[in-house]
Amino acid sequence: MVGARKVVLDEKEIPRQWYNIQADLPRPVPPPLGPDGQPVKPEMLAAVFPMSLIEQEVSTERWIDIPEDVLEKLLLWRPTPLQRAWNLEGALETPARIYYKNEGVSPPGSHKPNTAVPQAYYNRVFGVKRLTTETGAGQWGSALSMACCLFGLECRVYMVRISFEQKPMRKYMMRVWGAECIPSPSTLTDSGRRILERDPDTQGSLGIAISEAVEEAVKREDTRYSLGSVLNHVLLHQTIIGLEAKRQMEKIGEYPDVIIGCAGGGSNFAGVSFPFVADKIAGRDVRVVAVEPAACPTLTRAPYVYDHGDVAGLTPLLAMHSLGRTFVPPPIHAGGLRYHGMAPLVSHGVREGLIEAEALHQLECYEAAVTWARTEGAIPAPETSHAIAQVIREAKRAREEGKEEVILFNWSGHGLLDLTAYDAYFSRKLSDYALSDEELRKSLSSVEGHPRPE
Amino acid sequence: MVGARKVVLDEKEIPRQWYNIQADLPRPVPPPLGPDGQPVKPEMLAAVFPMSLIEQEVSTERWIDIPEDVLEKLLLWRPTPLQRAWNLEGALETPARIYYKNEGVSPPGSHKPNTAVPQAYYNRVFGVKRLTTETGAGQWGSALSMACCLFGLECRVYMVRISFEQKPMRKYMMRVWGAECIPSPSTLTDSGRRILERDPDTQGSLGIAISEAVEEAVKREDTRYSLGSVLNHVLLHQTIIGLEAKRQMEKIGEYPDVIIGCAGGGSNFAGVSFPFVADKIAGRDVRVVAVEPAACPTLTRAPYVYDHGDVAGLTPLLAMHSLGRTFVPPPIHAGGLRYHGMAPLVSHGVREGLIEAEALHQLECYEAAVTWARTEGAIPAPETSHAIAQVIREAKRAREEGKEEVILFNWSGHGLLDLTAYDAYFSRKLSDYALSDEELRKSLSSVEGHPRPE
Repeated sequence: MVGARKVVLDEKEIPRQWYNIQADLPRPVPPPLGPDGQPVKPEMLAAVFPMSLIEQEVSTERWIDIPEDVLEKLLLWRPTPLQRAWNLEGALETPARIYYKNEGVSPPGSHKPNTAVPQAYYNRVFGVKRLTTETGAGQWGSALSMACCLFGLECRVYMVRISFEQKPMRKYMMRVWGAECIPSPSTLTDSGRRILERDPDTQGSLGIAISEAVEEAVKREDTRYSLGSVLNHVLLHQTIIGLEAKRQMEKIGEYPDVIIGCAGGGSNFAGVSFPFVADKIAGRDVRVVAVEPAACPTLTRAPYVYDHGDVAGLTPLLAMHSLGRTFVPPPIHAGGLRYHGMAPLVSHGVREGLIEAEALHQLECYEAAVTWARTEGAIPAPETSHAIAQVIREAKRAREEGKEEVILFNWSGHGLLDLTAYDAYFSRKLSDYALSDEELRKSLSSVEGHPRPE
Repeated sequence: MVGARKVVLDEKEIPRQWYNIQADLPRPVPPPLGPDGQPVKPEMLAAVFPMSLIEQEVSTERWIDIPEDVLEKLLLWRPTPLQRAWNLEGALETPARIYYKNEGVSPPGSHKPNTAVPQAYYNRVFGVKRLTTETGAGQWGSALSMACCLFGLECRVYMVRISFEQKPMRKYMMRVWGAECIPSPSTLTDSGRRILERDPDTQGSLGIAISEAVEEAVKREDTRYSLGSVLNHVLLHQTIIGLEAKRQMEKIGEYPDVIIGCAGGGSNFAGVSFPFVADKIAGRDVRVVAVEPAACPTLTRAPYVYDHGDVAGLTPLLAMHSLGRTFVPPPIHAGGLRYHGMAPLVSHGVREGLIEAEALHQLECYEAAVTWARTEGAIPAPETSHAIAQVIREAKRAREEGKEEVILFNWSGHGLLDLTAYDAYFSRKLSDYALSDEELRKSLSSVEGHPRPE
């Protein structure tokens, strides 16, 4: 039926402020700790981030203004549509109504530029000339490349070596936006060289790439570092997704019973869900589900500990669910979900009982992705397929329970640069991996001796 | 400035009818001719197309209703945004206001599904079980694969061999939507086998692939053929682009002085421009510019003749600008613009003085595409880059003339599956090709003896 499939917002309806969940948490999130075991002082982060982002990181203001210059760039693809997955509902014969935010319409194809743009902007205003960052599957590196280009900054991206080799398109994409993409570990940094000496054939990891990018930012006065997930200010910028979704659902008189997002570092999940978690804190009955791969089960199997965000231990200790910074996940295809840690705000939300977590195997996720493409048209990113698989589970449950539930999820990105993974799936070259207890124990040895939150 | 960068339409504002320019042409377009040199009767096309599409092909009704089932599928990505290229305007320091229809937001990434969806629908309603088609760069094959999937039809796509080998992603994409993609020429058809016997190492061409797809449709009762451009009904379906654009421009009180689209077979160009050509026929002052590659200069250098749409000569003779059906274009990267002919309605429009044509070299187009990506964010398809290069020319002219012109163009698709072409551009592996007079004379020998229009 035409008239109930899509809700768009006029550009004048774009949210003018981000939502900061730190204002509403029943208990505050434990602070990051420095090498001395004491809470990190803002000045200590100044070699890495511009002060305005550090202020956002620790702010407890509920609403933070989005600068006009940032809004103008976000309008290149925002507000994104809220769409109803009508065809999928029909195929599943579910009474559930399934809505999704389509974040795949951004130029690099995912939600990532929602934070890349403000980060580039604040760095530019602060007088920074260059940004470094890391990227796994390449979504974040592409997004930051575009954002830097739009604000006239140079950009260097350390890309996990195995992805660099398997996904040359991402490197070409970054080049179109004028950025430099380096396979990590590289010989450009001490962190990289140390790892190459020990293991010249390493495939690299996100933790290693972060070490390289941070090291370069610390060493060069004109350079700062930019992170695509995990940190509070990154999640803050992503709340524009949920804020738009809320307005869009209000327009059609809907409110979700369940909100679902895939979670690697946690930013797209937080983006869609935090504005609704605010209502949950205020007493509203709503379920919020983070979905991670069974191969990298941070929220579902890792302890809540203080751990570094990178392999070399250059970052402060963050209070989070972590598999241990030396964790090397099995080679599943959702590169954006292969991080050892989880955003402190998301980890804290799980501890506080505000957020549920599920771990799914990749074959179920690919099956869900193909079902999606064959009903709703668009081909999802492998990361996004985790959210879709959980949506299908919930929709089937609703069918069994005969409940007219409203499901909202974040369609975090398209899979047009991940088609080789689909080919591998159809050619039955993919298999499910679950982390063994033995592997988990081993990787967790790296957090021994760290302080415990609370 | 937030408030002048983007115009969206609500789903209820989606056009409910296509615009048929045949109702308004000062002189009718010359009819297709059969093997006997007489105008083709609708029944003669029945082995290839369902009757409803044949009726649209010859209709002179001004408005043709879009079926509700088609609208529902179009809503998966339509209405598409009308965006203002504010950043590009600033970079060019032009007083021109540049607007573009963003057709890259469709699941396969281009305007092609605008006609793939209704074609699959009408075939389905007609009882057809399978569709065959050809594809060059892969945009059309992907779009038809998706459309067939959405309506439960089988789909076989003959893909020009060189593209099949160079662009494996397109094949994977079609597979996600359940379609079969065959490199052409193949051994599945007489047309393919004949060509392989003569030239086993042929790279293939669109004309060859059309022959194979048509032959299979004629031979199998359950199968019909679907064409992604050139024919009247295809251009009709694409007018939804221009109809939406017109409504969107009305909302902000704008009307274009110049409308620009790239032209291979002519469908995206016709789609954006025909609703405005209607105004031009009625006396309004508006320029309409089709942009083609200098390597395949159909409108700018080829004669207006009767020619076949395919190499084997299976299709009726169409009155069009044609380089000759045996024409094999040089290997430029805009695969969607490498067709020997041009839509009869577009060819006729040029003859009638309603449409201008320009031919551009690919290096200028890639330069324009990079300028676009670095100002407006999104990475254009190589085909789209031709429209952008012309937009930049017009914007610079407007600057020199000090004119506040309004430019509208069709951003026909993104280039996320064409990133290797960008890599080739940056690596200086691309060069400009212009067709020599000698080559042109040679390829035109295949139209000798054909009747002339009028």
